[in-house]
Amino acid sequence: MTKVQEIQQFLKKNNVDAAFITTPDNVFYVSGFQSDPHERLLGVMIFKNADPFIICPKMEVPDVQATGWTFDTVGHADTDDAWEIVNNAIQSRGISLNTIAIEKAHLTVERLERMEQLFEDASFLRLDEQLNGMRNIKSEDELVNLRKAAELADYAIEVGCNEIAEGKTEIEILMAVENAVKKKGAQKMSFDTMVLSGLKTASPHGTPGDRKIQKGDFILFDLGVVYNGYCSDITRTVAFGEPTDKMREVYETVRKAEQTAVDMVKPGVLAKDIDKAARDVIEDAGYGDYFTHRIGHGLGISVHEYPSITGTNEVPLEKGMVFTIEPGIYHPEITGVRIEDDVVVTATGVEVLTKFPKELKIIH
Amino acid sequence: MTKVQEIQQFLKKNNVDAAFITTPDNVFYVSGFQSDPHERLLGVMIFKNADPFIICPKMEVPDVQATGWTFDTVGHADTDDAWEIVNNAIQSRGISLNTIAIEKAHLTVERLERMEQLFEDASFLRLDEQLNGMRNIKSEDELVNLRKAAELADYAIEVGCNEIAEGKTEIEILMAVENAVKKKGAQKMSFDTMVLSGLKTASPHGTPGDRKIQKGDFILFDLGVVYNGYCSDITRTVAFGEPTDKMREVYETVRKAEQTAVDMVKPGVLAKDIDKAARDVIEDAGYGDYFTHRIGHGLGISVHEYPSITGTNEVPLEKGMVFTIEPGIYHPEITGVRIEDDVVVTATGVEVLTKFPKELKIIH
Repeated sequence: MTKVQEIQQFLKKNNVDAAFITTPDNVFYVSGFQSDPHERLLGVMIFKNADPFIICPKMEVPDVQATGWTFDTVGHADTDDAWEIVNNAIQSRGISLNTIAIEKAHLTVERLERMEQLFEDASFLRLDEQLNGMRNIKSEDELVNLRKAAELADYAIEVGCNEIAEGKTEIEILMAVENAVKKKGAQKMSFDTMVLSGLKTASPHGTPGDRKIQKGDFILFDLGVVYNGYCSDITRTVAFGEPTDKMREVYETVRKAEQTAVDMVKPGVLAKDIDKAARDVIEDAGYGDYFTHRIGHGLGISVHEYPSITGTNEVPLEKGMVFTIEPGIYHPEITGVRIEDDVVVTATGVEVLTKFPKELKIIH
Repeated sequence: MTKVQEIQQFLKKNNVDAAFITTPDNVFYVSGFQSDPHERLLGVMIFKNADPFIICPKMEVPDVQATGWTFDTVGHADTDDAWEIVNNAIQSRGISLNTIAIEKAHLTVERLERMEQLFEDASFLRLDEQLNGMRNIKSEDELVNLRKAAELADYAIEVGCNEIAEGKTEIEILMAVENAVKKKGAQKMSFDTMVLSGLKTASPHGTPGDRKIQKGDFILFDLGVVYNGYCSDITRTVAFGEPTDKMREVYETVRKAEQTAVDMVKPGVLAKDIDKAARDVIEDAGYGDYFTHRIGHGLGISVHEYPSITGTNEVPLEKGMVFTIEPGIYHPEITGVRIEDDVVVTATGVEVLTKFPKELKIIH
């Protein structure tokens, strides 16, 4: 069954006339067409009982068709009112819409107000849970891409470690890493690559800069690549020269927390318990105040998606879920350390997609 | 007057209790704090008659303070309900909100529904026009950053031209360009760099790949860099080896269209007339069907912002507006050509920020 058919099934079951999908990642998921339209309208209109169509900027019509989309593609020029064109496309099919499912977590208030004008008597309900539910469980085809994206992330860390040398800047190392993975076939990075050194590692969302790395630093790599539209996300922290005992203690605490969490993953375990298991290890070691974020997030077409692995999420893990496990300690005087893997829930346990070793690596 | 004070003035004038700003680019504009919070809540709450506060992920609180934000910063952990924390921060100030200005073009339906729950009796109105109006006119400080971003974009094109050689792939050239500008101080690229060769130039939104460039190709570079949070956006099309007469004709048509539009820019001219002037040149040459997009878009913190330079926008240009001028012809059998500059409206005319030459450059 195609994604479009799956959504049509949802529409029939809930007696909803149409679903309008406008989030670029969801458009890609249901149609295979990947694009960032910026402020221009891009959407897939799926009807309960008729063929769907894509509305997109006129100049991208050939690109949509090239992806293998076999239904109609309706283009709008920059001088058109794109919503009028959507409306005409619906009316020309003789369809009237009384209930429309939309992505409330993504659709803007302005766009909803426009739809309320166009479809005066329509009511709008959430499509979010349906789409999240579909995307939450990865198919074997999706896993093939996620495995390859993770393999490229492992390779990036390897390149990064090989680049480490006295006097190089964070940005120099970052560029060497990005070049290497792009040469290996990565479509692009899944987010801004992070290479942080010294005490800059203690900022979970720090920015790489001109700081020259020096002996005694921990160096933290957080990066991911996109392969065929699917993201990876890995973090490794390595030592340049001998670390202090305190730095080692922080590292080993994070490593134990991470491994404890990874080992717990299997169907039926609650998301919150994965977070708690790692947090307990860090709290027991006395660093609880320095682990300031959830343990992980879902991963797929988006680099942050469902499931969210937080201490309050009671959702039970299911086969096919893919997420990160990434505890960290951010101590402003000792160091920051984060270790992050991408994992898949299998029928009986866990498959770890990222494979770069986690024993403390000391580079001389 | 600070941006916060400017918004407070708007609130007083319109008797609105508060403005809640959650779009990352607008948060940066009003507060100086730049971050992509993904799905986490990041916002600036500005009150009519009290000091503002920032709500952000707990782990980013120190980063907000480091930017020089002197008001309160309220953190939320991943296990918190961020909206409850916003609500508490408001109540602890003894403030009640009856009217709230929001960014309707950005705020999601889900977030508005949550605010409607929290502030039951409040009404919500648009802050968009106020913010767009402010951002539409660049200050001298902003222009300093935009000039520097454009200078780096010029340099990137120069590097790209120097990289052209038989057998190199689009992606190899792209990587050399990105490396060079990052070494020169670009924070990052403002969008995915485009290097297209041969007939791939005929896709306005094509994707660079492994195609090896060859003599007789046109090579199209479309790229931009971010400098201190401000974007540039340049396109140049150059020839590798001798082009055909038809390719030259297409090139010269686009060049004439671009220059005609640039030369028209001054206060009082309507945006639509800039588009029309270029379009007329292309239509007169018989290529009207192959110019499939508007002539330009505003540029600043966002790579696409106001004003939009389309054939239907009747807004008169004003001193301080910054936008692109980028006509193109996309002929699937001859070639694609686009030429794009970034321009500022000055008191008497135009300042062109991008300065790389536009005469057809033939690389042997």
